[in-house]
Amino acid sequence: MKSYRKELWFNATRRRQIIHITPQIEECLAESGIKEGLCLVNAMHITASVFINDNESGLHSDYERWLEKLAPEKPYDQYAHNGFEDNADAHLKRTVMGREVVVAVTDGKLDFGPWEAIFYYELDGKRRKRALVKIIGE
Amino acid sequence: MKSYRKELWFNATRRRQIIHITPQIEECLAESGIKEGLCLVNAMHITASVFINDNESGLHSDYERWLEKLAPEKPYDQYAHNGFEDNADAHLKRTVMGREVVVAVTDGKLDFGPWEAIFYYELDGKRRKRALVKIIGE
Amino acid sequence: MKSYRKELWFNATRRRQIIHITPQIEECLAESGIKEGLCLVNAMHITASVFINDNESGLHSDYERWLEKLAPEKPYDQYAHNGFEDNADAHLKRTVMGREVVVAVTDGKLDFGPWEAIFYYELDGKRRKRALVKIIGE
Repeated sequence: MKSYRKELWFNATRRRQIIHITPQIEECLAESGIKEGLCLVNAMHITASVFINDNESGLHSDYERWLEKLAPEKPYDQYAHNGFEDNADAHLKRTVMGREVVVAVTDGKLDFGPWEAIFYYELDGKRRKRALVKIIGE
Repeated sequence: MKSYRKELWFNATRRRQIIHITPQIEECLAESGIKEGLCLVNAMHITASVFINDNESGLHSDYERWLEKLAPEKPYDQYAHNGFEDNADAHLKRTVMGREVVVAVTDGKLDFGPWEAIFYYELDGKRRKRALVKIIGE
Repeated sequence: MKSYRKELWFNATRRRQIIHITPQIEECLAESGIKEGLCLVNAMHITASVFINDNESGLHSDYERWLEKLAPEKPYDQYAHNGFEDNADAHLKRTVMGREVVVAVTDGKLDFGPWEAIFYYELDGKRRKRALVKIIGE
């Protein structure tokens, strides 16, 4: 069994930002030399998400408004977590979006359907944060 | 390490439909000959979900009404994604339900608790779509 | 390839309770002897969740109030599932929180970012229930 590990670093300029990372995951997979296996990609921070959906800007703005409805950022004092911090909403939004994805690796490729793409969703940005890529297989 | 791959195809007659697929995943596992490992099952489409919960029709109708509350289908123009399409709600509903499940394989069986069952949740149906089964192990 | 399996049992005294299980998962990993691979932790019950987030009590009470807003426990008769049972809300809350986590194993450790911690979220407690730990790798 082979295994491969890489950290991807981000520095989102906004509090919330969706970053397309499929090309970087494909590079990792090529570097790994793994042909058959599983590829895990997860946020290493608990106020960020890695998810798979459509690479379409309208949908990304829908996510933004929808998550604000499900778990609004403000008023900050609605959350017990916001004593010294103001990011409770980011913890909840990331819960909806998910921490991680697991993708099949087949013939050395991400085994994706027609429109699947991987995104890092920064929900409490303006600082350096990262995602982990771990691939195991042969 | 062994690996196994299969696509499961569906053609839901309704826009939204929950399809029980545990028996098909068990067949895949038997075919694979894998005794110890991990089994990934994921929707290959971004308007569908694979999830694990109870095989009980009351709960399934609860899901339907609950998801309509969290991310209503109509009016279509409430979503920026719905320029040429009308399925933004399906992208959001699938986000709540999840894209994939990872199940332990032990002694050649899906290592499940008493009521766990796997479902494909079609959220934008009336056409041929598919899920991926990938099993790795020994 | 090595594989390791263990069940973790819980007996939550309240209907809903968040239990920190990172130390137990670290013990499992040490017992397994696996240095590189993937670690799956999943609820074996469909009214409980395993999730990764912050080990901070304010956030945990935010989760409680937030989930009650998204999928209220009462009135019980709002859910079709609640014929003989009263736990439909637990099935929905667990759907938001997720069934499982997959964690990278690197150099014999859970490959975590700075604040990641693993929790079992009991959503229909006052009885013995369990989570599964499955680790594969080398």
